[in-house]
Amino acid sequence: MSERKILTDYVYKMVASLVQVGVETVVVSPGSRSTPLAYAVASTKQIKMYRQVDERSAAFFALGLAKATAKPVVLLCTSGTAAANYFPAIVEANYARVPLIVITADRPHELREVGAPQAINQPHLYGSHVKWSVDFPLADGAAPTLPFIERHIARAVAIATSAPFGPVHMNVPFREPLLIDLQDELPTMTFKHSSMGQLIPTSAAMQELSSILKSTKRGFIIVGELALGTDLAFVWEFVRQLKWPVLVESLSNMRAAVPEDCLPYLVTTYDAIMKSEDFKALVQPDTVLRIGAQPVSKFIMQFITKTEPNAYVIIDEDPMFRDATGVSTHFIHANIDQWLTQLAITNTAFEEAYLAEWQKANQLAATYIEQYSEIEKDEGAMVSRLLKMIPDGSDIFVSSSMPVRDIDTFLLATPKDIRFFANRGTNGIDGVVSTALGFSEGNDRETYLLIGDLAFLHDVNGLIASRYQECNLTIIVMNNDGGGIFSYLPQSTVEAHYEDLFGTPTALEFHDIAHMYNMDYIRVDTISELSEKFSSDKKWSLRLIEIFTDRAENVQAHRALWNRINAEFKA
Amino acid sequence: MSERKILTDYVYKMVASLVQVGVETVVVSPGSRSTPLAYAVASTKQIKMYRQVDERSAAFFALGLAKATAKPVVLLCTSGTAAANYFPAIVEANYARVPLIVITADRPHELREVGAPQAINQPHLYGSHVKWSVDFPLADGAAPTLPFIERHIARAVAIATSAPFGPVHMNVPFREPLLIDLQDELPTMTFKHSSMGQLIPTSAAMQELSSILKSTKRGFIIVGELALGTDLAFVWEFVRQLKWPVLVESLSNMRAAVPEDCLPYLVTTYDAIMKSEDFKALVQPDTVLRIGAQPVSKFIMQFITKTEPNAYVIIDEDPMFRDATGVSTHFIHANIDQWLTQLAITNTAFEEAYLAEWQKANQLAATYIEQYSEIEKDEGAMVSRLLKMIPDGSDIFVSSSMPVRDIDTFLLATPKDIRFFANRGTNGIDGVVSTALGFSEGNDRETYLLIGDLAFLHDVNGLIASRYQECNLTIIVMNNDGGGIFSYLPQSTVEAHYEDLFGTPTALEFHDIAHMYNMDYIRVDTISELSEKFSSDKKWSLRLIEIFTDRAENVQAHRALWNRINAEFKA
Repeated sequence: MSERKILTDYVYKMVASLVQVGVETVVVSPGSRSTPLAYAVASTKQIKMYRQVDERSAAFFALGLAKATAKPVVLLCTSGTAAANYFPAIVEANYARVPLIVITADRPHELREVGAPQAINQPHLYGSHVKWSVDFPLADGAAPTLPFIERHIARAVAIATSAPFGPVHMNVPFREPLLIDLQDELPTMTFKHSSMGQLIPTSAAMQELSSILKSTKRGFIIVGELALGTDLAFVWEFVRQLKWPVLVESLSNMRAAVPEDCLPYLVTTYDAIMKSEDFKALVQPDTVLRIGAQPVSKFIMQFITKTEPNAYVIIDEDPMFRDATGVSTHFIHANIDQWLTQLAITNTAFEEAYLAEWQKANQLAATYIEQYSEIEKDEGAMVSRLLKMIPDGSDIFVSSSMPVRDIDTFLLATPKDIRFFANRGTNGIDGVVSTALGFSEGNDRETYLLIGDLAFLHDVNGLIASRYQECNLTIIVMNNDGGGIFSYLPQSTVEAHYEDLFGTPTALEFHDIAHMYNMDYIRVDTISELSEKFSSDKKWSLRLIEIFTDRAENVQAHRALWNRINAEFKA
Repeated sequence: MSERKILTDYVYKMVASLVQVGVETVVVSPGSRSTPLAYAVASTKQIKMYRQVDERSAAFFALGLAKATAKPVVLLCTSGTAAANYFPAIVEANYARVPLIVITADRPHELREVGAPQAINQPHLYGSHVKWSVDFPLADGAAPTLPFIERHIARAVAIATSAPFGPVHMNVPFREPLLIDLQDELPTMTFKHSSMGQLIPTSAAMQELSSILKSTKRGFIIVGELALGTDLAFVWEFVRQLKWPVLVESLSNMRAAVPEDCLPYLVTTYDAIMKSEDFKALVQPDTVLRIGAQPVSKFIMQFITKTEPNAYVIIDEDPMFRDATGVSTHFIHANIDQWLTQLAITNTAFEEAYLAEWQKANQLAATYIEQYSEIEKDEGAMVSRLLKMIPDGSDIFVSSSMPVRDIDTFLLATPKDIRFFANRGTNGIDGVVSTALGFSEGNDRETYLLIGDLAFLHDVNGLIASRYQECNLTIIVMNNDGGGIFSYLPQSTVEAHYEDLFGTPTALEFHDIAHMYNMDYIRVDTISELSEKFSSDKKWSLRLIEIFTDRAENVQAHRALWNRINAEFKA
């Protein structure tokens, strides 16, 4: 068989294997070494191909696609530092539990570690930050090679999509010549299907959990960001049965479209009320049950650590369960599913007054938060106002740092069906524009991105994607000229070096970027302008709303809110 | 002792240790976890601190500084994906042999792998791509800790600056509270000095090399990019003694300021003349001696591979010597130094006619290349014209892909003192703007960057550095709207998917970027405009010269040149 035919069969077998296990999208960055596989991807109608020349942004774009679809997304790049540029998004995918299938083209073995151009030591390039890494054989025409491809791609995707989801890496060497024969049909497959298991607790664990819940007098549930694809119905049903206060982080997506009969249990304002020592003294729990990731709010986590409840139970699908409090007492290794509603709880010991304390405090804080944008004019007020204007049926991607905290502060229970997403695996401010663009591509809901000026600038290259395919997104940049979050930290009490090391203002404005990328641009300086200029009626596929705020005012206004709420508990 | 005093002593000991071993510059990216060390750096007058919020660009900026100064440069960032963003520059530093001292702040042990924010598995984060990685202890006030700091920093810098140079990684955990007492004076040191050895060949190797050289009838030297800090005087003296043709890559910096008596041996046009089968038949060598990295030119390397000389000797300071030809016969593990001129060569066997063939061909090709910009109007002509206009005493940083190849094609021997640098460790197009900015900071010569549109866009964030400190650079963007190099590769013969996968045009122009970053902007559409508008008299610290060229015309014009030269050999 000719070299070319062998190479052609090899790469189409790869693509057929990806299609077979459910891959629908591939994000490709241009390069020479990846040519054979890129041709096969581009010529396969079952696959939607996206393109992005900046590999760092490409990887975050793929991450966003995978988050929106809860499906594995493939990344493909050439050899060399292209692959190293994927690293930040891979690390995020690892901690955020997102199934990225990373394929790096490599030089053949004779060109590795010999000073050949664009050749770096690629096998196991991402170290402990992928769930699995495998080095493929060359297209050699040997009998075991095509069966290897089918099964190794199936294995890689199985690993990426078994709980907890995460990234995998396939390093694939190609020897020149790199051209193939383009084909219309994919080859037939011999490997049929991998069926992923579901994690449920043992009956012993179910009994123990039941008995903890039944004997609890004062307890609450706290829900962080949930695994991709989690069905909230199970959580709601559990809340209905247990009738405990349920503290829901904005990223749990349990603050919006809340079932009517669950509303009484919902606490959204815990970050604000947990700033009051008086309130904390009232709600010491025996039991805390955590579902999903650790919440953004530092105050609630510190409360749990200090309280040391008799039982702090964490339900998580990763055996290396996430608990930074250091006071967890039980760990239940499971996906959120039917079993949660089969615990048969009759929690007669529970003190109704305990729920009432939370309800009263939450209502009180909610009233102040509700009025906030009438009183203040800062970044928080802008976020609060935006939350009211963003239409039903939208998704809001939120940057780390202040935006995710402001959403957590200002998002109250709402009947609107709006959803919130963020990169909270590692809480980086990198790659956020790309993740939001990929996310927006992955579903048909209107998507908004709320982001600060430094995070926007960090991934301004995310916008390059819009030059290669139509992208739809409204980007709302909170431009406070620098790192706003540091104003809330102890560093802000030290004047020396503050602006140099933490404030780091760039004095940049982004209308030029909007012009370069042919985006609709709206400038907002005041909260009344925001109400006038914001419209959900978008004429351009890409839109940039740049809101100018002041770092000093932001922190003052936030503190004033917390003081107002705090004062109520003192009274 | 108070926690604060212990932490203060810890970070000032770190800074004192860095200063002690010769570190003069630190590139800091803002973040919270790195606060104690950032304060100590910012308050130390012996250290110049640079800032950049995009860590990917920060790392390339540091790489450029280290390349310009041949001294270790420190990078400092916070925990999380910030550290992962350093990866591309670290990989480049590893292969380009640049002493980067990477310091990543980390969470304390109790916050690792427990879902704490911005906490990722950081020890050994960069795998095989650093020479050494060490995880520091916490600031615990224990007796061994301060001596550990002194010696581990000295060790790290010693490793980074021993041959071959390369990156090292120190992971340093900090526990809250992160504030320190700012101090004016650095603490005294107990560790005094590490003195790095020099690699010279054994006398047996010297003898063997002498005997190979003496018995050679037909041989040439080829010089690629040399190790940082190499003294060219030794190479020139060796050339004088040996009297062989010496093929010098542009990045060897042996095409400019050539000693008069070495000029007769200099071959600069080998890439062009090696495209002629007729010429290659005339110059089959017995011996090839390579100094420095493998050259950019694929044609000369293929010639060596095909010829399989009796002796293909590589002199390199890395025991994992770089040879992608697979035909090397001898490896000499050494730095370029005095010993090279002490080989006592009287190469009486050498055929003078062999030198004459190279001289004749080089002269002929040089004539065509010299005239090129009078005949053609393409990108090559622009480069050729620029090389004539760029003033004596300048440095030119060159992007990978087409710019480095165009420089290699169009740079002839010149009496001007101009120097050329590039990221050729891994030949990436990433981080080039930042590397050039860092490079320009590292010396007081006027610096130019020659770069394509995709590479410029890839690291447009490099410009953020100019918002935090004065930067000086003329950036010359060759905007051919996409990946120009692919037009020269076999992929360009396949019409299907070509623009999607390889051309990847963005249709972006960069005047908006220039406006946003307050850069002088000059647009050039024709070669006569280039001559009119180009001036070495720079009024702005940052300048963008955007030259528009056409990918199809570029490849045609280059091929026409090679055909003209080729035809001469046929005649």
